[in-house]
Amino acid sequence: MTSFTLAELASRVGGQAVGDATHRVEGVRALEDAESEHISFYTNRRYLKLAQESRAGVLLVADAAPFPGRDLLVHADPYAVLGQLLELYFPSLRPPAGAHPSAIVADSARVGEGASIGACAVIGERCEVGERTVVGPGCVVGDDAVVGPDALLHPHVVVEARCRVGARCILHSGVVIGSDGFGFATVKGVHAKVPQVGIVVVEDDVELGANVCVDRATLGETRICRGTKVDNLVQIAHNVKVGEHSLIVAQVGISGSTRLGHHVVMAGQSGAAGHLHLGDGSVVTAQAGVMADTPPGAWVSGMPARPQREWLRAMANLFTIEELRKRVKALEAALKRGQSNHD
Amino acid sequence: MTSFTLAELASRVGGQAVGDATHRVEGVRALEDAESEHISFYTNRRYLKLAQESRAGVLLVADAAPFPGRDLLVHADPYAVLGQLLELYFPSLRPPAGAHPSAIVADSARVGEGASIGACAVIGERCEVGERTVVGPGCVVGDDAVVGPDALLHPHVVVEARCRVGARCILHSGVVIGSDGFGFATVKGVHAKVPQVGIVVVEDDVELGANVCVDRATLGETRICRGTKVDNLVQIAHNVKVGEHSLIVAQVGISGSTRLGHHVVMAGQSGAAGHLHLGDGSVVTAQAGVMADTPPGAWVSGMPARPQREWLRAMANLFTIEELRKRVKALEAALKRGQSNHD
Amino acid sequence: MTSFTLAELASRVGGQAVGDATHRVEGVRALEDAESEHISFYTNRRYLKLAQESRAGVLLVADAAPFPGRDLLVHADPYAVLGQLLELYFPSLRPPAGAHPSAIVADSARVGEGASIGACAVIGERCEVGERTVVGPGCVVGDDAVVGPDALLHPHVVVEARCRVGARCILHSGVVIGSDGFGFATVKGVHAKVPQVGIVVVEDDVELGANVCVDRATLGETRICRGTKVDNLVQIAHNVKVGEHSLIVAQVGISGSTRLGHHVVMAGQSGAAGHLHLGDGSVVTAQAGVMADTPPGAWVSGMPARPQREWLRAMANLFTIEELRKRVKALEAALKRGQSNHD
Repeated sequence: MTSFTLAELASRVGGQAVGDATHRVEGVRALEDAESEHISFYTNRRYLKLAQESRAGVLLVADAAPFPGRDLLVHADPYAVLGQLLELYFPSLRPPAGAHPSAIVADSARVGEGASIGACAVIGERCEVGERTVVGPGCVVGDDAVVGPDALLHPHVVVEARCRVGARCILHSGVVIGSDGFGFATVKGVHAKVPQVGIVVVEDDVELGANVCVDRATLGETRICRGTKVDNLVQIAHNVKVGEHSLIVAQVGISGSTRLGHHVVMAGQSGAAGHLHLGDGSVVTAQAGVMADTPPGAWVSGMPARPQREWLRAMANLFTIEELRKRVKALEAALKRGQSNHD
Repeated sequence: MTSFTLAELASRVGGQAVGDATHRVEGVRALEDAESEHISFYTNRRYLKLAQESRAGVLLVADAAPFPGRDLLVHADPYAVLGQLLELYFPSLRPPAGAHPSAIVADSARVGEGASIGACAVIGERCEVGERTVVGPGCVVGDDAVVGPDALLHPHVVVEARCRVGARCILHSGVVIGSDGFGFATVKGVHAKVPQVGIVVVEDDVELGANVCVDRATLGETRICRGTKVDNLVQIAHNVKVGEHSLIVAQVGISGSTRLGHHVVMAGQSGAAGHLHLGDGSVVTAQAGVMADTPPGAWVSGMPARPQREWLRAMANLFTIEELRKRVKALEAALKRGQSNHD
Repeated sequence: MTSFTLAELASRVGGQAVGDATHRVEGVRALEDAESEHISFYTNRRYLKLAQESRAGVLLVADAAPFPGRDLLVHADPYAVLGQLLELYFPSLRPPAGAHPSAIVADSARVGEGASIGACAVIGERCEVGERTVVGPGCVVGDDAVVGPDALLHPHVVVEARCRVGARCILHSGVVIGSDGFGFATVKGVHAKVPQVGIVVVEDDVELGANVCVDRATLGETRICRGTKVDNLVQIAHNVKVGEHSLIVAQVGISGSTRLGHHVVMAGQSGAAGHLHLGDGSVVTAQAGVMADTPPGAWVSGMPARPQREWLRAMANLFTIEELRKRVKALEAALKRGQSNHD
């Protein structure tokens, strides 16, 4: 069983041990489940009381003050350290290298050394699968598609023909890369399909959540740049470009040809219309609908989206209209009285 | 062919036969498709005229009054009785027990008696599949996962490693249980993955709609409690707990660590932010965005969500601002006139 | 390599060649990627500068005026012509006819001539698959289901038992046709499943995007009429009817029993409550929530949806409440001064 002293943990993650540095830690647990042999973590003020009352032997915290007398691992960014601890205590399991006998791998496909192809997975003609990449059961990689090295495709991922997935990408179950963009030319009320002949490029270190859809470009490419993380059930339309290191939260929809800068955040269930540019570092809050370009660093909310501060004030004002009407009514009555006094 | 008299139906469902109790009923049909040998049902006032004009031989209704001279099956809760009738006339078909030759079942897996494993399904190491459970074609059950007895997994369901699904659960096609939670520690603009090492627990009698995603917990578990029903394309994030007998309608998103009480209803396309508590019996109306805890029994609407009554009034008021502005303008003019009169 | 002169292209698509009609065009490219041997297109005013600066040898445009001296293909509807050009230069590839050895096709199924059944696809008892139809790898077609001729099912499509898909339909990866409708009869807080025994009918020439869900009817049918195009991640509930030649954009949700007329447009992330009727040619704008019937040709916005013009004005007014309050305050102060003057 994996086991470290508090001192060893502090040394590995670059934190500070407070209290009994010889305290032996055998696992990471949530605050409510932890016992004396576990380390737990306090990263959200909502859970201060829970942390103070936790039976965890060691607490990972940013600030020792609220926890007098406790054994602590102190670090300015406890959430980042939590990730490191979880990697220490839960090393990820890799399936055995090689193709399962039930997998269908085209003769013309090139599968890198150490790669694992799961049961009933289908690897098309002239595909490339990188070294040590895991293709889960039931995945389908279309003809001429490329998946880089050290990638992880959970079960039932579809990478359609000619699309490219970078190194170290993680694609969760049900991801569809390279479905056709929604493009039709309407003539006399009948929608004729505009062939979608472009591709999707997913750069290195991107993670895509379960059942995410990324449409191929009409021409050229739809691109998700390196380091970007996408949550479940997100829709990314044709010819979209999502910049580097962005965060796209669950159920977001990005319409065709819209370009996001780097370090953009789109919160849950928000959307962006087509052919827009969202500047670097833009933040779109939950359920917002972006209908115009946003400058770098903008925080926008509401539908149509406005600067968050304006929107928050407007939302508060919305609930004051009634009171305002009463005041207007009183003014009207007062004025009427005043006028009749003058008659 | 299944066939019952009206008297037999009334006796089986605990209702009252009105009219010719010997009327023979050979099937259940929608109001517009039913003929004299069918029973149909009237459960929504919008369809009163359709019901009155229906050629159905027997009508299932709550109240006989609007249907003089018709053969009726009267019951206080016709929709519940409809379910019983459908079970009588459409007994569910079960695929044959045993594993299809193309299924990949690990030697270490335990598959209960009477269970059916579909074509190209994959059952991982040390899995348990309960008695009489149906695992559809193309399903993937990860290592150490458990599916209880009498469950029904439609095609292409993924239950990732170590997750647990209870007895009598129904999981529709494309459901993903146990994808990674969306957890990243951002250091200097780069998002480092926080390993998600917890599990998902789906308790007994839960139904999950097509393409629903339930993320595994960072640590501990994401839990959907017994009797809860979830519609298509819903996102349930890591460490969420959904209480018993709740209804989560299509395209709802529930953010990380939020806890729902029992008998909560979230209507279509609504969402809840993270780390919230929605009290027992809360109702979130369609497209609402919950940004704060809700007390038990609360009905909330809008974004950010407010008590429904306040929100409805505010929405109505929103369309009166223009008229209010006119009144203010008139007051200003009147006052100006008044002042100039005094000058 | 496919190659045409500008004159040949103009003749094939019924457009007008401007400039050097012998210009040889070897491919279609996006404005920023095109070189002298390519044709590109200008369909959106946002990209005028990009078009003028493009190195494309030929431009497909509606109006020659902004492009003096360029070789042009002029047509009133360039987007429609783009579709034709893409078909010329990118003829679609079809997998070989016949069933892959790993496919599981029931003996009682009828597969039409020229049809292709992909690896690990499962075709159930008594199914019909039309001539020349392509069923992608991993698809599951349930017992007694029908897929018409010349259809294209991308990988991992599920057509559940008894459902019907028309001729020339395109179903993208992860589509689920015939999942159960969300129907429960709640007795004392416990939700009893109402069996969903109807079917789904998808008429001819319909396209369904990736991970779209269409629920089967409780009784009768859920129907998507011919020529309708549905984008990714859309939810269509039980007993819905979507009329002909409609456009349902990504992440839309349509609740149970709602009927859409012909040529209806629902923009991204919008929704409609249950048991409604949206008239022919209705347009629901992005993120709107339709809570009442809409007349033919209506444009509606907001939640609850209102005529778009009213809603746009209300949204603008929302941001004027503060100014209005100031004016009311000034009036109150003026009136008070006036009154005290009179005291």
